[in-house]
Amino acid sequence: MSDKKAILVIGAGDATGGAIARRFAREGYIACVTRRQADKLQPLVDQIKAEGGQAHGFGSDARKEEEMVALVEQIEREIAPIEVAVFNIGANVRFGITETTARVYHKVWEMACFGGFLMGREVAKAMLPRGRGTIIFTGATASLRGRDGYAAFSGAKHALRALAQSMARELWPKGIHVAHPVIDGAIDTEFIRTTFPERYALKEQDGILQPESIADAYWQIHMQPRNAWTHETELRPWLESW
Amino acid sequence: MSDKKAILVIGAGDATGGAIARRFAREGYIACVTRRQADKLQPLVDQIKAEGGQAHGFGSDARKEEEMVALVEQIEREIAPIEVAVFNIGANVRFGITETTARVYHKVWEMACFGGFLMGREVAKAMLPRGRGTIIFTGATASLRGRDGYAAFSGAKHALRALAQSMARELWPKGIHVAHPVIDGAIDTEFIRTTFPERYALKEQDGILQPESIADAYWQIHMQPRNAWTHETELRPWLESW
Amino acid sequence: MSDKKAILVIGAGDATGGAIARRFAREGYIACVTRRQADKLQPLVDQIKAEGGQAHGFGSDARKEEEMVALVEQIEREIAPIEVAVFNIGANVRFGITETTARVYHKVWEMACFGGFLMGREVAKAMLPRGRGTIIFTGATASLRGRDGYAAFSGAKHALRALAQSMARELWPKGIHVAHPVIDGAIDTEFIRTTFPERYALKEQDGILQPESIADAYWQIHMQPRNAWTHETELRPWLESW
Amino acid sequence: MSDKKAILVIGAGDATGGAIARRFAREGYIACVTRRQADKLQPLVDQIKAEGGQAHGFGSDARKEEEMVALVEQIEREIAPIEVAVFNIGANVRFGITETTARVYHKVWEMACFGGFLMGREVAKAMLPRGRGTIIFTGATASLRGRDGYAAFSGAKHALRALAQSMARELWPKGIHVAHPVIDGAIDTEFIRTTFPERYALKEQDGILQPESIADAYWQIHMQPRNAWTHETELRPWLESW
Repeated sequence: MSDKKAILVIGAGDATGGAIARRFAREGYIACVTRRQADKLQPLVDQIKAEGGQAHGFGSDARKEEEMVALVEQIEREIAPIEVAVFNIGANVRFGITETTARVYHKVWEMACFGGFLMGREVAKAMLPRGRGTIIFTGATASLRGRDGYAAFSGAKHALRALAQSMARELWPKGIHVAHPVIDGAIDTEFIRTTFPERYALKEQDGILQPESIADAYWQIHMQPRNAWTHETELRPWLESW
Repeated sequence: MSDKKAILVIGAGDATGGAIARRFAREGYIACVTRRQADKLQPLVDQIKAEGGQAHGFGSDARKEEEMVALVEQIEREIAPIEVAVFNIGANVRFGITETTARVYHKVWEMACFGGFLMGREVAKAMLPRGRGTIIFTGATASLRGRDGYAAFSGAKHALRALAQSMARELWPKGIHVAHPVIDGAIDTEFIRTTFPERYALKEQDGILQPESIADAYWQIHMQPRNAWTHETELRPWLESW
Repeated sequence: MSDKKAILVIGAGDATGGAIARRFAREGYIACVTRRQADKLQPLVDQIKAEGGQAHGFGSDARKEEEMVALVEQIEREIAPIEVAVFNIGANVRFGITETTARVYHKVWEMACFGGFLMGREVAKAMLPRGRGTIIFTGATASLRGRDGYAAFSGAKHALRALAQSMARELWPKGIHVAHPVIDGAIDTEFIRTTFPERYALKEQDGILQPESIADAYWQIHMQPRNAWTHETELRPWLESW
Repeated sequence: MSDKKAILVIGAGDATGGAIARRFAREGYIACVTRRQADKLQPLVDQIKAEGGQAHGFGSDARKEEEMVALVEQIEREIAPIEVAVFNIGANVRFGITETTARVYHKVWEMACFGGFLMGREVAKAMLPRGRGTIIFTGATASLRGRDGYAAFSGAKHALRALAQSMARELWPKGIHVAHPVIDGAIDTEFIRTTFPERYALKEQDGILQPESIADAYWQIHMQPRNAWTHETELRPWLESW
């Protein structure tokens, strides 16, 4: 196991998390991917293996502290040191303020932010003694501004951005590269295809983000020499209005 | 009760919340002030009454949905329509990321953000049928950027800012003025006096914010005609570096 | 002349500059107002006098260094110390990038930014020995972001914002309050009335900014105690989308 | 000349511009590099040729409209279509506001902003009929905030950022990728070595930016597929405080 390195992708249930895992696996990283139901990860794990890579799927609830602690420990002990960790869980819901239940508001924060805190803290503990590593939190338009109907979602994404920034300021000088790319546009996913079909139709003109493009950008961030690190960057399609 | 108007100040336990309550009480508003332990509010209630104003103290935990729902209902039913609501609870703690417990991270968010959501939603319900009202969320430096050691606090403040912005974009066109003043500096409080004495010493040169100045700014925001509303503004001492 | 104080308003040709001058004149300040053609200022000067105030009109090109130097010297020597200075010249033009001539690009910068630099520097020289004063640069939506067709205008406004911020950081600790309010919406002016009539029609619902509201906000900024100064704030109508 | 593509680097006098030109030349682009004195470019041109690339040096004053127009025309006519253009001129001077002469304020803007406008406009004219191309404006810390002593420099950099943003919003949907990377830290240059030696000493720990790292980032921006373009990103050393 000596030369092996792992990438941990929390929230590999969607196209983006999957593309990131595959990208790093192609470079030799052992992809450790999670979502709540492990069995749904099997196609991704199989695909990575079919492409010649190594992968492990974990059923894990990112909101549960004990599960996240155990997950990081297990990977570090049994698989390989976590060189890269990506937090990729969103929770894009829209409700007017008076229709936003306390349960929804709390749950969106737990999924899209609290899980990121748990992952970030646990992998930081593992990386700090090694003085190296990359931690990436996936941002969105809602990370930068609140909009009508997005009190819950933008609250969670703003808090995740604050986490990324606080961790970067603490951990960069200790050798750990914390980054917060902002994905500002629709991604080519099943969710967009079924929910916003006219948006999805822009795909023919490259008008929606491809998960592989995002994965390339994440790989480039990880590869940056430490004299020129990026914390925040943004990715959007050429046709996006912003 | 016909002409009466109430101001609700959630988190009137510190100097700022108290000064805001007194300021609006001087203008004829019935000050409804809360903190977790009602008995500690008695000096403030007494002071407002001694100054000729009206005030009610409520022991209330802003993190408890049922308490916030009941509080707003009670004030609206028994005291007066809530014309102004101010969320003023902070939770300024500092821990390195690996020393931040899940309990602290969650609690800081509950206090400094979730309580604001509950207040904001409940008073919005009361104000919407009237098509008027002012809702102010108190921001801080940590609302704008994350810093080493402030993952929890800046996360909560960032999320509160997203809440304020989302609510403003939804509620302004319905006549409700939502604002987010950012208090960017130390305030003249017991906390600063005992914790940062050398900072406190700047008071002699007006180097720390006076609660009365903040209260004046809040009053001005409330008084703005709707053709020229402020959402975000900032207040800091002349000697503050930023 | 001992107790007298002057306000200098550069660019008092439009409704906003005029309203600011009148507002401060009502508070006892001698209004020194400028625009390129002095005779066009006569109605404003007359109006201020009719309201019981004092006013002087100056024909002055804010882009000419020698004129700005002479103007500030003359007011300081013959009229009163300049306690407040407001730079209020805009140059809102829209051209696609390939249609933007070098002449237009340069001129917009000269009017909306370089003139502000000259005013700011000259009044700073006068205020610094007194250790007091207020300098306000009027910002706009274009101060915060560039948009299709606004390379020239947003360039000038961004640069003016950088000037305001640099001066604030240098001069606040020397007692001079530098502020940059951002006016984010259409103002009730002849220009809007004739150029954007459907926008202007929102006036009936308070949907466009009133110059008097802006003037009130400027007065409040000037009145702030130095323990709680505002540098940047924003004003927009309740119906504005942002 | 049919398959050839050129990169135009305005301001190739420093290490960064040179590294960018060399990077793209290694990928097959014909490097067209400018600075005011052509003869000083000879070492860079020679180096690129020695590395197997193609390069042309031009003595050109970026502030002169007729020179920039002629430069772009000449390259397009005689050398190759300009596929990439980089504006890399800075003018980092520091003066207190009252010590900033009108000449300095104007000149800094001309160098660091107006030249960028001229380059941007002229290459846009060439690129628009082809519906493709990349235009990069080099940003700095001063692009994002004004600081004590930097009224001139941050004014120019803010205006350049507004230019980049306005052009991006206009030209992205026409196929032209406009980007604004923010270089937030000292670069390994002769200027830093002689002016800030203790800063330069951080080089041993990768504490200052290497021009080659910046050049790599620019290459990556140019290579992005149009479904995932970056407009603004930031590069800083791991040890930088921000």
